[in-house]
Amino acid sequence: MKEKQFVIVSYDIADEERLRKIAKIMEDYGFRVLYSVFECYINRSLFEEMKTKVEKLIDHLEDSVIYYFLCEHCREKIEHIGRTPFYLEEEKVEVV
Amino acid sequence: MKEKQFVIVSYDIADEERLRKIAKIMEDYGFRVLYSVFECYINRSLFEEMKTKVEKLIDHLEDSVIYYFLCEHCREKIEHIGRTPFYLEEEKVEVV
Repeated sequence: MKEKQFVIVSYDIADEERLRKIAKIMEDYGFRVLYSVFECYINRSLFEEMKTKVEKLIDHLEDSVIYYFLCEHCREKIEHIGRTPFYLEEEKVEVV
Repeated sequence: MKEKQFVIVSYDIADEERLRKIAKIMEDYGFRVLYSVFECYINRSLFEEMKTKVEKLIDHLEDSVIYYFLCEHCREKIEHIGRTPFYLEEEKVEVV
């Protein structure tokens, strides 16, 4: 399935080393917007690939990962207050 | 506007005291599913009330809060792996 989806990946990872590895994996699939929240815009097969990698790494008793899928309508309604999310900072650096 | 909306509130709060206060506020409006993620099912006026309280408390240069609104269709597609989110644990305790 080629059609891309907007997915919010949020997680609580109990172990520092696992946390670091999960973040590393996530960087291949999306942008970090908060410490443990990534925004991804990927097709279903890439999502499944990412999910499989994450599932292999986490401790299913200690860690928790939630995937929220947003349609275009929901995506347009996102609101943000405070410090600029990570990825916008990076984009700002490239543009200046 | 009486119609309820499903809102994911995710945040990075740089200061422990502010973090504790934000979580306290959020408990009045929704369920904590991850350490810094709440799920709320509230109408627009309650959402604005919550947002005003959060906005007064955060440091706009250090902290970051993102609100994701999910329609019913997106809400049904939520996927979760690993440890049960907080609120389900509480519900499980009440039910047993």
